[in-house]
Amino acid sequence: MRAVTFQAPGEVRVEERPEPELRDPGDAVVRIDATGVCGSDLHIFHGRVAIEPGFVIGHEYVGTVLAVGDAVHSVAVGDRVLGCFQVACGTCRLCRAGNFHRCEHGRTFGHGATLGDLPGTQAEQALVPHADLTLRRLPDGMAAEVALFAGDVMGTGYHAAAPVRAGDGVAVLGLGPVGLCGVQAARAAGAAQVLAIDAVEARLAMAREFGAAPVHLTEDDPRAAVKAATGGRGVDVAIEAVGDARALELVIRLAASCATVSVVGVHAERCEVHMGLAWIKALTLRTGQANVIGHLDRVLALMQAGVLDPSPIVTHHMRLDDAPDAYALYDRREALKIVLEP
Amino acid sequence: MRAVTFQAPGEVRVEERPEPELRDPGDAVVRIDATGVCGSDLHIFHGRVAIEPGFVIGHEYVGTVLAVGDAVHSVAVGDRVLGCFQVACGTCRLCRAGNFHRCEHGRTFGHGATLGDLPGTQAEQALVPHADLTLRRLPDGMAAEVALFAGDVMGTGYHAAAPVRAGDGVAVLGLGPVGLCGVQAARAAGAAQVLAIDAVEARLAMAREFGAAPVHLTEDDPRAAVKAATGGRGVDVAIEAVGDARALELVIRLAASCATVSVVGVHAERCEVHMGLAWIKALTLRTGQANVIGHLDRVLALMQAGVLDPSPIVTHHMRLDDAPDAYALYDRREALKIVLEP
Amino acid sequence: MRAVTFQAPGEVRVEERPEPELRDPGDAVVRIDATGVCGSDLHIFHGRVAIEPGFVIGHEYVGTVLAVGDAVHSVAVGDRVLGCFQVACGTCRLCRAGNFHRCEHGRTFGHGATLGDLPGTQAEQALVPHADLTLRRLPDGMAAEVALFAGDVMGTGYHAAAPVRAGDGVAVLGLGPVGLCGVQAARAAGAAQVLAIDAVEARLAMAREFGAAPVHLTEDDPRAAVKAATGGRGVDVAIEAVGDARALELVIRLAASCATVSVVGVHAERCEVHMGLAWIKALTLRTGQANVIGHLDRVLALMQAGVLDPSPIVTHHMRLDDAPDAYALYDRREALKIVLEP
Amino acid sequence: MRAVTFQAPGEVRVEERPEPELRDPGDAVVRIDATGVCGSDLHIFHGRVAIEPGFVIGHEYVGTVLAVGDAVHSVAVGDRVLGCFQVACGTCRLCRAGNFHRCEHGRTFGHGATLGDLPGTQAEQALVPHADLTLRRLPDGMAAEVALFAGDVMGTGYHAAAPVRAGDGVAVLGLGPVGLCGVQAARAAGAAQVLAIDAVEARLAMAREFGAAPVHLTEDDPRAAVKAATGGRGVDVAIEAVGDARALELVIRLAASCATVSVVGVHAERCEVHMGLAWIKALTLRTGQANVIGHLDRVLALMQAGVLDPSPIVTHHMRLDDAPDAYALYDRREALKIVLEP
Repeated sequence: MRAVTFQAPGEVRVEERPEPELRDPGDAVVRIDATGVCGSDLHIFHGRVAIEPGFVIGHEYVGTVLAVGDAVHSVAVGDRVLGCFQVACGTCRLCRAGNFHRCEHGRTFGHGATLGDLPGTQAEQALVPHADLTLRRLPDGMAAEVALFAGDVMGTGYHAAAPVRAGDGVAVLGLGPVGLCGVQAARAAGAAQVLAIDAVEARLAMAREFGAAPVHLTEDDPRAAVKAATGGRGVDVAIEAVGDARALELVIRLAASCATVSVVGVHAERCEVHMGLAWIKALTLRTGQANVIGHLDRVLALMQAGVLDPSPIVTHHMRLDDAPDAYALYDRREALKIVLEP
Repeated sequence: MRAVTFQAPGEVRVEERPEPELRDPGDAVVRIDATGVCGSDLHIFHGRVAIEPGFVIGHEYVGTVLAVGDAVHSVAVGDRVLGCFQVACGTCRLCRAGNFHRCEHGRTFGHGATLGDLPGTQAEQALVPHADLTLRRLPDGMAAEVALFAGDVMGTGYHAAAPVRAGDGVAVLGLGPVGLCGVQAARAAGAAQVLAIDAVEARLAMAREFGAAPVHLTEDDPRAAVKAATGGRGVDVAIEAVGDARALELVIRLAASCATVSVVGVHAERCEVHMGLAWIKALTLRTGQANVIGHLDRVLALMQAGVLDPSPIVTHHMRLDDAPDAYALYDRREALKIVLEP
Repeated sequence: MRAVTFQAPGEVRVEERPEPELRDPGDAVVRIDATGVCGSDLHIFHGRVAIEPGFVIGHEYVGTVLAVGDAVHSVAVGDRVLGCFQVACGTCRLCRAGNFHRCEHGRTFGHGATLGDLPGTQAEQALVPHADLTLRRLPDGMAAEVALFAGDVMGTGYHAAAPVRAGDGVAVLGLGPVGLCGVQAARAAGAAQVLAIDAVEARLAMAREFGAAPVHLTEDDPRAAVKAATGGRGVDVAIEAVGDARALELVIRLAASCATVSVVGVHAERCEVHMGLAWIKALTLRTGQANVIGHLDRVLALMQAGVLDPSPIVTHHMRLDDAPDAYALYDRREALKIVLEP
Repeated sequence: MRAVTFQAPGEVRVEERPEPELRDPGDAVVRIDATGVCGSDLHIFHGRVAIEPGFVIGHEYVGTVLAVGDAVHSVAVGDRVLGCFQVACGTCRLCRAGNFHRCEHGRTFGHGATLGDLPGTQAEQALVPHADLTLRRLPDGMAAEVALFAGDVMGTGYHAAAPVRAGDGVAVLGLGPVGLCGVQAARAAGAAQVLAIDAVEARLAMAREFGAAPVHLTEDDPRAAVKAATGGRGVDVAIEAVGDARALELVIRLAASCATVSVVGVHAERCEVHMGLAWIKALTLRTGQANVIGHLDRVLALMQAGVLDPSPIVTHHMRLDDAPDAYALYDRREALKIVLEP
């Protein structure tokens, strides 16, 4: 089968790989019908996340079940399915507590040996371990390009907005696909107002379409905008969807006393944090990757109801064979979300 | 001043009463600009809630501050304000825990001696104890007829829907003003679907406008409708906004395993409950009057944002002097919500 | 192998049965080292829970793994293990939400065809489906008779006390093994005081040993005792561990405003409930069987630390072959907990 | 009256001050019977918290009510009372949400103009604004030296341990009075184990008395100790009661995946935080001063029950006139808690 592989920083290639086979009773093999290119793929493309040359990448997917192991009961051969970017065992201590994103045996598609050695989904087929937890039948009438958000980007937006209570004021900093999904999820959860902050006009325009008040990061004054919108108090939930120290500093400043700062932007290193300000305000900082398996049922229900609708975020459809072009395009920030079809 | 008084079951009258005067440092006197007639008023009208003949009734209001005591800091003379149907001290053990609706010194407007001997708001003026907790300045641009829902009916709808999490399936049984506000609040809180159940076509039509799927109580089959909409599971939150044993039985049947049954319909007596069914499903039954003071800030934020909008529920505007006609009309179920203006 | 079977109301018998064999990849076969007789077994003995004559009963157990299927990873042949009274799939919608007690494919040991046709553990061996979720290695140094409480009676006591916050006042009505474990769990969770109510002196004495203030159901006045202990307010959490209408009525009366009533006593039918009183107090009624799988890690940690210690509840040790005598003894209420050893 | 005043870094003095008088209807004047010297006082003594020379310091107190304003209902002249280190209005948006520690009009005793210009309690008398929220009658039989912990140090320990659920593993870093109270509160809330970390032997010994496993910060290896105690997972709740970057780094390392880091140590500045590690573990960082008013009822209930008992922490009793000696002693770390009596 053909599959997109990482070769070296700046270089991906479509290569032949053997078709996957069932190994464990909980496995499924899925024929990929659509797969996305995501910001995390770009980290790999840039060499910031180190993986083995030749490793198959990609982790967003919708497909059709080709085979299932003896212990798989929730999906059957021929089912159209969607899946999550990572798999979880469902039985370890962390899974038992519902923290599927920190499963002791968790593996992430397309991220090399360090994240579980699980070949990616930018391929004609993929092996999906723990299929009963990770896969779900495609809801009737849901487009593939919508469904592939459920187990990754929209699941992360939902996670980012999980602390929002109906009536809250919310700010979202960083309007890539995750931030834009966070805007939708915050509105869905009852945010009375969402201030959406970025420096890219097109993203601000899309956030406005999604019901947010757009605030330009540099041309406007985000702190003043939040103050004006909240009677000087700050927001109840401040979502950081960037992943650096400056973004974290800004959301701490935008937060009201006793607010929650929801950090879904990826942090991988030490950074200076204004703990004094966070402490004086008695903030709660909620960090980490999204528990997309845990959110999947609710995210799908909201997408099926049309309350969440990521389709405007999909700017490009391309062929799997054109993956090198897709990565180049994405790297130039000319696309928000590219869907590849084998 | 003129004021609407209860005389006997089926009889209210507009009479002269002395203007209220400040008694405690936390008091305010408010000139009433608009006041609602509510389902609870009808209980009094019917003699089911016994109050003293001649007692001034009514508990929904928007007005203008005429005087404040020394300890009042949040509103000033001349402010346009809205208020809550009950007052709370803010300092007793229950208030300290945020349970303002069960304040040890709580008093309800217009409900006679047993609920605190606090004259009602269907009058030209009203005395408002604990004004800092109970009153709030009218937000800019908010219509009076919208604002008077905040401290009563919409606050109760918000309370009913408080257990809703984004992505839940919800059923609302009973589409009087509280149930209809519950539909809006459930949608605001992220319900993926709301099934709205009643036997009155006009109410079902309004619920549909508010984003619910209408289900006729007798002509449709509510249990079948819920099953069909939820893959056979039942709803995650079932709101009972009627207040009798049959309604409670039905919502217990509509609820999914581990669901919450939110009982805002008024129960005053013993009744037969299918505890066996509730227990087998591991339901949580959340009962009681709404904590409208606790919800007020969020409800106002949502109404200001237009996410909650009770204005379609207001079917009639009348003069305070026409209160006897208003009560007769409401008693004939020809109105959903009547707003009286002095 | 030998196994205890239900024959008819009032009659159990030890019979020969074939040894269990693995069927699914997630199964284990366990040699039973110790198994308890529980109040639920008595319901079967009395014919109140109808099961097929000849069905193997019992659901509390500690044992040694004899065989495991291909998908079992957390325990191995030869491990000493403890288990839960019911099994859950770990992947259905309810399990994904952590509600293992309401698993769509849940099965209960020793309760006949209606609860999943899973032969009981009062036998020399038992088949344990979904072993990764249901079994746990016996912690070092933990006695078998302590460990067999974890997955049933102590798990239920923990569940009953789950709403308790440090500093709460708590009442426990019904001091069978579940109520007594509820007393311990409430103390562990930080109850400032626990009032333990029953009509049996020996149980009251044991509750006192566990840190509760004993209150005789009929010779004392439970309502007066609770009032005196709580400044007239009532308790923050009222645990009903009896399972009938009178007990439910009493705990509703003992509860403070905005309290939680935790109903772990088994309800199987309709009953009259004072909803008026519950509603006026704004109570939350939390009902249903315990989520023992969900609580297992924490319960084991507390038992290992000695914070929870059910050993005083074990009043009798007997041989499996003496099960008929054990049931007769238990039926005469001469034992609190009987442990059977094959 | 005599009062302890800050003069300059390293210098406090007992001076004459006019007796306080009621100003607002919610005020009380309290004769101080006992007042503590606290770590926060030492910050002032060291000049790290800048206040005006001559300002009366101190914020822990037990006393007798000498006078109350017209709006005070919960305490009366002659009542023996205890109080909180800060006062809150009870009616602002933050107080309405129960966040008394961030009251928009909050004032802290003895911290100069920047924290509300409220003279301290190391004096013969003190003015207590918002007395109904801040004061509570001394429970029968409670020693003054115990009671003065409720509204400050023990309230902070309770706050630190608030995320603990029964069965959790907990670490407490920093065993000053707050950390030691955190150990007690964590045990009270059901911690299965508490690892208590410090470099001072006497504090470790006291933590052991309070039920913790002592771990020497430098002579032992805290990370190895936590790993050994938790099967390699880390603790569910990690309490940082020091207030610097190194302590924060360590608790992040001690925390399990999805754990809560409870930061009650005072942070006033920027510092380097290992956000990468926190993010990978999906930690929640809960920061800020304690909501002692919010916790007061539960803390008092636990102290009255003897579950929490700070009396071993009191190492010295001295006269108010000896305050300069007391501060010098405390500065040399020769005392854990000094109680001053006028």
